[in-house]
Amino acid sequence: MLIKEIKELKNLVKSWKKEGFSIGFVPTMGALHEGHQSLIKKAVEENDKVIVSVFVNPTQFGPNEDYDSYPRDIKKDLELCMMVGANVVFNPEPNEMYFNNRSTSISVSKLTSVLCGAKRPGHFDGVCLVVSKLLNIVTPDKAYFGQKDAQQVAVIKRMVRDLNIDVDIIACPIIREEDGLAKSSRNTYLSVEERKAASVLSRSLNIAKNLLNKGERSASKIKEIMMEEINKEPLAKIDYVEIVDNESLENVEIIEKNILIPIAVYIGKTRLIDNFIFEIYTY
Amino acid sequence: MLIKEIKELKNLVKSWKKEGFSIGFVPTMGALHEGHQSLIKKAVEENDKVIVSVFVNPTQFGPNEDYDSYPRDIKKDLELCMMVGANVVFNPEPNEMYFNNRSTSISVSKLTSVLCGAKRPGHFDGVCLVVSKLLNIVTPDKAYFGQKDAQQVAVIKRMVRDLNIDVDIIACPIIREEDGLAKSSRNTYLSVEERKAASVLSRSLNIAKNLLNKGERSASKIKEIMMEEINKEPLAKIDYVEIVDNESLENVEIIEKNILIPIAVYIGKTRLIDNFIFEIYTY
Repeated sequence: MLIKEIKELKNLVKSWKKEGFSIGFVPTMGALHEGHQSLIKKAVEENDKVIVSVFVNPTQFGPNEDYDSYPRDIKKDLELCMMVGANVVFNPEPNEMYFNNRSTSISVSKLTSVLCGAKRPGHFDGVCLVVSKLLNIVTPDKAYFGQKDAQQVAVIKRMVRDLNIDVDIIACPIIREEDGLAKSSRNTYLSVEERKAASVLSRSLNIAKNLLNKGERSASKIKEIMMEEINKEPLAKIDYVEIVDNESLENVEIIEKNILIPIAVYIGKTRLIDNFIFEIYTY
Repeated sequence: MLIKEIKELKNLVKSWKKEGFSIGFVPTMGALHEGHQSLIKKAVEENDKVIVSVFVNPTQFGPNEDYDSYPRDIKKDLELCMMVGANVVFNPEPNEMYFNNRSTSISVSKLTSVLCGAKRPGHFDGVCLVVSKLLNIVTPDKAYFGQKDAQQVAVIKRMVRDLNIDVDIIACPIIREEDGLAKSSRNTYLSVEERKAASVLSRSLNIAKNLLNKGERSASKIKEIMMEEINKEPLAKIDYVEIVDNESLENVEIIEKNILIPIAVYIGKTRLIDNFIFEIYTY
């Protein structure tokens, strides 16, 4: 079922809650691919009812970013959602979500001043605003996010904790193409040549994984080898390659606890991100 | 019943929701007086269950403000709440409410840069943070605020609207002493002499009311006469006297719609606020 109005969705959610149904929520910007599909499937497995939002959120795009050209295909999105068992696709118009004189903003400091946040000022404020609004509208028991957007997951988890929002944030594994490229709505921007070159992101992360498994614990050494690999690819231009604490996103030099290796690389004009979590178990 | 832990309160609220009970919430900083009492009574009338929070919220006090000396009397507060029919008094410790590494903030722009917001930087960010947290913990159907803090009411209403928080914000009339002084926890700071002088706030608002009822529509003329009245009182020092739109808090010059007249006056070292809403019905 497609719902475009907040009020209609809230009424449906209230009727479900009265029946005692658990609610899973998958917030997306549409242009759904197998990555999103895996989130929806997990939500369907774990909840009585599942709502998928497909809202291209204007407040999380910078003035020179791809808001207008961001891929939109509501018909295909709706089909995919229904196929995997979602109950509702929520697709509001921007003016249903935002008042002209809106004046409320949410910021998560520190975690948003690094990595993508440093390159996309205001991006995570926009994400926090729309996610908090959607969580207040949907009031889900569990909300599902793709681990590909690792910084987003860390920021949302922090916001939910700090604001006592009553929801479990579930991060789901990155889904990849056969050559390792992380699924992303922005992959459609790539030319055939660029598409081939884009496998360098996951390749460099695999190199890091192998180094870590062999016992390498120097972050700068690992980053250096990753950057060498990426720089071999003529179409690739590194935005960042970092090794950080998985919760605080603070830089790590000697790797002795759980870490995140997030990378952002331009392939031609398209900026792609990917990451890898390395867990160290201490007994 | 006194509850100090978020988890315990949430579990109780969940059991109430399962029973289908409506929940009223009165967020306070304790030191309860007849003003708060009127809010709690209204909440008891309108809801099946009523929760009163008495949390002196550190994040809404400036560094040179009265956080440490703010009056606290949990025993008396608990008695008053039980007497008028509240079910729970929520009195968390500061470290139950705030993590040391909290990094999330909420701001309402424009509305908070005027009036008290201009004199108390960060105050309304602190109010928004604690109110949004409390609303997420309590998930009430209705939340009750005193109209004495008129700017707070406007800011909270805006935040609730912008973030789609599912609660009715109910503003309740100012409760006054016999001489007109608005009830306030900070009235206890006043000496006997200052207490007498403090009636000048409501007196000046009554003058405005009379002028408006007689048809005066010039905001600057009304403000001038109010300020004259306040300045007659030797212990009084005006912080601000304004006439603003009741929703946007923007200055009004010619009064032709609903307005708010908020004032802040120092009586000795104690800063007191009061206000008056004038409604113009258009047919």
